[in-house]
Amino acid sequence: MEKIILGVDPGTQLMGFGLIAVEGNRASLILMDVLDMKKIESHELKIKHIFDSMIRIIDAYHPDYLAIEAPFFGKNVQSMLKLGRAQGVAIAAALSREIPYCEYEPRRIKQSITGNGAASKEQVAAMLGRLLNFSDMPKHLDATDALAVAYCHFLQKDIPEVTVVGKPRKAKTKSWASFITENPDRLK
Amino acid sequence: MEKIILGVDPGTQLMGFGLIAVEGNRASLILMDVLDMKKIESHELKIKHIFDSMIRIIDAYHPDYLAIEAPFFGKNVQSMLKLGRAQGVAIAAALSREIPYCEYEPRRIKQSITGNGAASKEQVAAMLGRLLNFSDMPKHLDATDALAVAYCHFLQKDIPEVTVVGKPRKAKTKSWASFITENPDRLK
Repeated sequence: MEKIILGVDPGTQLMGFGLIAVEGNRASLILMDVLDMKKIESHELKIKHIFDSMIRIIDAYHPDYLAIEAPFFGKNVQSMLKLGRAQGVAIAAALSREIPYCEYEPRRIKQSITGNGAASKEQVAAMLGRLLNFSDMPKHLDATDALAVAYCHFLQKDIPEVTVVGKPRKAKTKSWASFITENPDRLK
Repeated sequence: MEKIILGVDPGTQLMGFGLIAVEGNRASLILMDVLDMKKIESHELKIKHIFDSMIRIIDAYHPDYLAIEAPFFGKNVQSMLKLGRAQGVAIAAALSREIPYCEYEPRRIKQSITGNGAASKEQVAAMLGRLLNFSDMPKHLDATDALAVAYCHFLQKDIPEVTVVGKPRKAKTKSWASFITENPDRLK
């Protein structure tokens, strides 16, 4: 049965989101985009915009999982508080619709997709273009970053077992290298 | 008409909450308590517990406003990320029920209630006991801290005008000192 994964790269200036459909061991792109909140003045309205947009996306595409990029370190306490809020609001939107979520650290996402945990955003985007058959790159790479989290979740071995809402198990990372070895037909 | 204010002091170990009913210029205590999440192992389950509990409280008491204690500085980026998430989830729960919210910094809360922005938790709790007629102090002062945010919101001049969801206006702080001068009958 087809599963839909919503990937989110939270932020309070730009929030990337990407949706993929998974059928067996095949994934296809549904869409990717960003919420641009640079013109929203108050932090309160940004928070509300994130929540409302997440609900709209969820209600439109009915994703089975939320996969979220979750850096655990940042520049300063102020920015981490804002990032934490953006993450919390995005997660809460999923919880309010009883959608389980999984967090992945940036390094792990890059590692699963490119085989290199220190890959650039451009490298991640280019690999995703090959994997999901698109060549037009979005204006903001926050969109491909979000798609990358969704794809990273797809690469985990046992997605269908993630059923406990809000309690993602420790997924075993599958590197892109081992993945293409096991699934040679996936490489175009 | 009676208005209900839910005050929340977010945290991922203990989250305080307090409810007051406001009728004209009188406030009365409904309840205060804490969510104790120390025994919940994973951060994911704590986040879910906060969200579910907030929804339960909101659906049981139908508050008209959420007032949230929002420190903007903390010890380290890691703790601020967690605090931001807890705040974000609590705010999102209110947004999901279309309840407007307002944030207050700790210093301002203490200032409005005791007249001293550097008051201790115990001093805040004692003053609240006088204002709201209770003498049994709760085990965790996170509960009185939460009640303090609700009371601080009540002390703002124009509560009934806060109607835009998620867009609290800049409220004018009324110090406790000026408040008792204007409302001598409130002091028992």
